[in-house]
Amino acid sequence: MRRRAAFQGELGAFSQTAARQLAGYNFIPVPMQSFEEIFVTVVNGKCHCGVIPIENTLHGSVHENYDHLLKYDLPIRGETFVRIVHNLIVPAGVKFSQVRRVFSHPVALNQCRRFFEENPQIEKTPFYDTAGSVKMMMEKGLTDAGAIASANAAEIYCAKILRKSIEDDRENFTRFFLLERPKRGVKFVKNQTAKRFKTTVVFTMRNLPGALFRSLSAFALRDVNLTKIESRPLRGKPWEYLFYLDFIGHVEDPACRNALNHLAELADMLRVLGCYPAGE
Amino acid sequence: MRRRAAFQGELGAFSQTAARQLAGYNFIPVPMQSFEEIFVTVVNGKCHCGVIPIENTLHGSVHENYDHLLKYDLPIRGETFVRIVHNLIVPAGVKFSQVRRVFSHPVALNQCRRFFEENPQIEKTPFYDTAGSVKMMMEKGLTDAGAIASANAAEIYCAKILRKSIEDDRENFTRFFLLERPKRGVKFVKNQTAKRFKTTVVFTMRNLPGALFRSLSAFALRDVNLTKIESRPLRGKPWEYLFYLDFIGHVEDPACRNALNHLAELADMLRVLGCYPAGE
Repeated sequence: MRRRAAFQGELGAFSQTAARQLAGYNFIPVPMQSFEEIFVTVVNGKCHCGVIPIENTLHGSVHENYDHLLKYDLPIRGETFVRIVHNLIVPAGVKFSQVRRVFSHPVALNQCRRFFEENPQIEKTPFYDTAGSVKMMMEKGLTDAGAIASANAAEIYCAKILRKSIEDDRENFTRFFLLERPKRGVKFVKNQTAKRFKTTVVFTMRNLPGALFRSLSAFALRDVNLTKIESRPLRGKPWEYLFYLDFIGHVEDPACRNALNHLAELADMLRVLGCYPAGE
Repeated sequence: MRRRAAFQGELGAFSQTAARQLAGYNFIPVPMQSFEEIFVTVVNGKCHCGVIPIENTLHGSVHENYDHLLKYDLPIRGETFVRIVHNLIVPAGVKFSQVRRVFSHPVALNQCRRFFEENPQIEKTPFYDTAGSVKMMMEKGLTDAGAIASANAAEIYCAKILRKSIEDDRENFTRFFLLERPKRGVKFVKNQTAKRFKTTVVFTMRNLPGALFRSLSAFALRDVNLTKIESRPLRGKPWEYLFYLDFIGHVEDPACRNALNHLAELADMLRVLGCYPAGE
């Protein structure tokens, strides 16, 4: 049986590209409607792994997924980056002069403002999904419409790319995590083939002056390099926070191990969410 | 002419309660459709002030507003907290047994899960706004429907509260900021009547190991207490971040002034977004 990799969106979504990069071609990509369904299906064992977006260079963190990482406790096993390239896609035979409305997810439409300013005859039409808008356009056989989505979506639904890379900002990347069920008794083993590792942790501190500063000292004093900090509200304690940190290194590296032991002394709660080969 | 305070949502929204707390009864509350319109209308001088939500104890930060604070450079002049209490509201004369569907914003519907579990005969019906759902229900004269919104919304639209406080989690608070246009030549003057001040700043650091730790040292070494840290992506520099900090104190207090001077030495960019009496 081929193994299954859950992702959010329709076939052709940017998450599917991430799933292919992280899980490889041997996995069947399995579309899910929501992020939470990805976590549930991997916990249940219905999919072998799941792929979630965690942050985008224009929009910031996907905060919902930070909350799910804490709730479902599925270890992060990998990381990858996908450049978000938006294309104007039409059914074969449709010319640019025929296009009167363009469907896509509202975020994608907003990332192609220049295109719409230069083409005021075309109406922006919000749809629930980028790849889903290509699918719908092809199924309905629309001849006055286009969709904005990935090149992969054009290929999957046998549509044609009419304008490539119409996004305003080319520095548009999304970072994704690979999630797998924890293997019994197996922690984060250092795979010697990876060059560089990253570790993601979550912790809470008592709400004292200087608490965050002291917690970061555990890393700074050992030259462990933080790459990301994210705060989320702590349920039941108004105006207190959970902190999520990403740092370069493997939990088995002495400096990282000591930093985590030091942080554990200071923290009320500390959990390692994953230790994984860093994406390129 | 009575002065105008812009807020997002329909009359009766929780933001209107915040606007009354921050601007007082002498201001006419002016509803806006989006957060960005609030910033634009205050910059244009069409409204004297604006009120925005910045974080909620269950959902976290309103990240969009952090981005607008940087873009529009409107000083924060005040802070307040509103407890979010959801009520089941119906037109006068409608009995609980008649209610078959309940309208509200999806977030509000999700915050009343227990109510819907205990009343499976009632259908959750998403609407664009909490107070707007009361308005629509009253305008259409629905007799089989209810809405979930604030007590204030029930009063404004002459509807009746049938069940009070049906939210799952009572630790549901939203923090709001008051924004005003900068007065020429006037910085953040210390109003002696306020007991406690808070300051909000935004800064960027070069992406070096320990950079965030060093920037927090400016505050920790002077016992200046941070209450919040938020990170947002830095446009044009993938995987670098803007940091927003809130701390207790006034920019004219010696410890705070020294901490800001110290941070300015370390930061690539530093801006004070506001210095305001702390909300109760």
